[in-house]
Amino acid sequence: MEADIGLIGLAVMGQNLALNMNDHGYSVAVYNRTHAATEQFLAGSAAGRDDIVGARSLEELVAALAKPRKLLLLIKAGAAVDEMLDRLVPLLEQGDIVIDSGNSFYEDTVRRVKEMEARGILYVGMGISGGEEGARHGPSLMPGGNEAAWPLLRGILGDVAAKTESGEACCAWIGPEGAGHFVKMVHNGIEYGDMQLIAETYQLMRSAYGMSYPDMAAAFEAWHRSELDSYLVEITAAILRHADADGSPLLERILDSAGQKGTGKWVSQSSLDAGVPLTLISEAVFARYLSALVDERRDASEILEGPDDPRPTVSAGALDDLRRALLAAKVVSYAQGFMLIRELGSGRGWELDHGAIAQVWRNGCIIRSVFLDRIKDAFDKDPELPSLLVDPYFAGLLGDCHTSLRRVVSLAAQTGVGAPALSAALVFYDGYRCASSSANLLQAQRDYFGAHTYERTDRPRGEFHHTDWTGSGGPATSNAYNA
Amino acid sequence: MEADIGLIGLAVMGQNLALNMNDHGYSVAVYNRTHAATEQFLAGSAAGRDDIVGARSLEELVAALAKPRKLLLLIKAGAAVDEMLDRLVPLLEQGDIVIDSGNSFYEDTVRRVKEMEARGILYVGMGISGGEEGARHGPSLMPGGNEAAWPLLRGILGDVAAKTESGEACCAWIGPEGAGHFVKMVHNGIEYGDMQLIAETYQLMRSAYGMSYPDMAAAFEAWHRSELDSYLVEITAAILRHADADGSPLLERILDSAGQKGTGKWVSQSSLDAGVPLTLISEAVFARYLSALVDERRDASEILEGPDDPRPTVSAGALDDLRRALLAAKVVSYAQGFMLIRELGSGRGWELDHGAIAQVWRNGCIIRSVFLDRIKDAFDKDPELPSLLVDPYFAGLLGDCHTSLRRVVSLAAQTGVGAPALSAALVFYDGYRCASSSANLLQAQRDYFGAHTYERTDRPRGEFHHTDWTGSGGPATSNAYNA
Repeated sequence: MEADIGLIGLAVMGQNLALNMNDHGYSVAVYNRTHAATEQFLAGSAAGRDDIVGARSLEELVAALAKPRKLLLLIKAGAAVDEMLDRLVPLLEQGDIVIDSGNSFYEDTVRRVKEMEARGILYVGMGISGGEEGARHGPSLMPGGNEAAWPLLRGILGDVAAKTESGEACCAWIGPEGAGHFVKMVHNGIEYGDMQLIAETYQLMRSAYGMSYPDMAAAFEAWHRSELDSYLVEITAAILRHADADGSPLLERILDSAGQKGTGKWVSQSSLDAGVPLTLISEAVFARYLSALVDERRDASEILEGPDDPRPTVSAGALDDLRRALLAAKVVSYAQGFMLIRELGSGRGWELDHGAIAQVWRNGCIIRSVFLDRIKDAFDKDPELPSLLVDPYFAGLLGDCHTSLRRVVSLAAQTGVGAPALSAALVFYDGYRCASSSANLLQAQRDYFGAHTYERTDRPRGEFHHTDWTGSGGPATSNAYNA
Repeated sequence: MEADIGLIGLAVMGQNLALNMNDHGYSVAVYNRTHAATEQFLAGSAAGRDDIVGARSLEELVAALAKPRKLLLLIKAGAAVDEMLDRLVPLLEQGDIVIDSGNSFYEDTVRRVKEMEARGILYVGMGISGGEEGARHGPSLMPGGNEAAWPLLRGILGDVAAKTESGEACCAWIGPEGAGHFVKMVHNGIEYGDMQLIAETYQLMRSAYGMSYPDMAAAFEAWHRSELDSYLVEITAAILRHADADGSPLLERILDSAGQKGTGKWVSQSSLDAGVPLTLISEAVFARYLSALVDERRDASEILEGPDDPRPTVSAGALDDLRRALLAAKVVSYAQGFMLIRELGSGRGWELDHGAIAQVWRNGCIIRSVFLDRIKDAFDKDPELPSLLVDPYFAGLLGDCHTSLRRVVSLAAQTGVGAPALSAALVFYDGYRCASSSANLLQAQRDYFGAHTYERTDRPRGEFHHTDWTGSGGPATSNAYNA
């Protein structure tokens, strides 16, 4: 037998993806650095599947594959990928395909696509989301890179990918170079944002509203039947219901120190480079950093004063306010994410299809939700939409929900429950719809102390003015600040 | 005559620094890429000063200097510095000193200190702040790099630097490698934060309180006589009083699109790398990005709904609330800045003296303020202070002010005036004093969908647990996610 595809890396994602491909009739050769893991897999969850075969070496793996070979890497991002390519590529032939499905930084993928092209290898950087369940039963797939690989991959990738309700695959060719990993990175940032927003609503329910675990679980279950229908809301309800061995809520025993694997950080840093105000996701990243300072927080809680009345009377509409606030904040977060996709994508000349990206995320991945249908509609209707916020549907939704978001942010401020992402959402909404912001003062200050010049509202853009504010600065401006 | 020091780059900063050094009795040789600027300077503001001499070439400049030569670069950061070094260093001798006083990225300075050391040159990366006025009459100086240069520089730098009220120079040796430029970078980030906080209070006065320009100016003038006594508050009052040619407030004619030169971005990116939750400064950077989307904001203002009643009745204590809110937010911002200095500094092994840094910023620079005396006191008393927030003085101040900050953030939310930095300050304050955050839910979610494991509150740290939440995930965790 010549296997249809080779898979390198048998951690849980790799194992599940191999089983998924095999379910769809593809034969898979697998390789892992430690062969024991391969044997365990073949004797375990892959038992009885004759067309999943193990290889003891890369040579054996490569020899087992039909040509042009397709190799899927599910290994740790970073140097490990370059090391693997150094070992693997000498064994390959012109036109073979290597797909990196790890969480590689997209700039690395840009470089590798080019390096591999020079060596005749079709290199693809593919974002994959959905966790272990997604990998097993249908993940969201974001391939990008050398487009010559796409006709040879679209069959298998389309088969294993998740499907939308109308049966379309949650897999599309994202674009050239590092576009696939870039979009996966933004996906992960949005995931950070969604998770943080949900965590804040949980904290408000718990600390400000004083709700019980069953009541909180019931609230998320109800939300899952609303426009908030999404995987993360669903699993939050399940988590809130999950009991520890003694029957009490397991969640209360889980340490409040959140880890992260770097992609959230990358998306914030990329937005800073691209000049895009990605505030909500950045607050979510920072919230994880703050959470990790467990001892500092515990100590500070003994020292720093909170509000006098941290638990006010909760009105009848409070829970509905919270639902609307979460929905509005989610719109803002996705609007920011797509701003980054637009700016960075156009800066790179990648011509990313926003509607197609929304469809890829519609199912299979961690951020899958009904909500993404609306995003796809918005971009399909107007591919040049400057922001999701001004799409008629989302503008209307925000019109319905912003008052709730205002009340929730006020409540958080008054009760001393920090809600960084919800607050960032409201602040951005108000900032984005602000025709006359306070940045005129920033420009005046910059011109005052640094002669940085400013533009005037009554003069054409691009005309720069300087005021000698102190009467002693003279006409020199900082534009001349170079030797 | 052999000049005491050579200065390269005669934009406004360079000109003023040359005059400042000369005021203190130092002879200065100056060079500019275009000689016309040198001639203009010598015939203009330097007229009549015999010991400021011009050089037509780098060779002439180097020949004019006493040995070991001291050369101060005031040129554009980036590639221009490397190009200048390539031209300059062949003209120098072992033990000569080159000081880069531009806004260089500190990682570049780390590299250059090492490269220059290999060539026998004592290289110093010096942050300089104070704008044109500071350069002329006493800037804040943050030198770092090759410490062998310090004994040869401390005289002249101490002389030209600003002085505190007790007469100490606002100049100290910051540390090795890129420590000087790093601390300057954090300074600039804090400057972004201070400016944004002031801009938000202005916007609240203008849009929520409906105050007139003379009343706003009077408020800032009064604040300048309080604990908020600072350069930026002072110039804000002056800007609010500044009339355009027709007598109306100039500020209303200045376009609300704020520029930036990269150091704010760098400090946010560095905090993301260092794992430090630098939320307030990052919001300030993003606020500038958002401000630049002038047309998008104008369009969105026609589409997106604001609150029904954007201008509520303002209570008698409202202005005092605003003052306390600004003060509290400023404490949070500086606390975050010093968290970054602590984390990144200790990660680099730089042993940065936080009290000395506060003193260097005390005068001469853009963020100079009375407030910095208190910061110096706090770190002098306890150099290991985990955060400014828990210093007894600042904890007490926050105890007095947090209620005002809560009211102001609520007011901003209710009136639709975006206040990103004030909001970020409150959110961070409440997050930092939170003994039991919502990050337990993040960890549960991560373990649910990605088998990322979690720690338990009732088990030792470092012990990682995984729950098979769905009953189908099995025991594999993502820690095994590598081939």
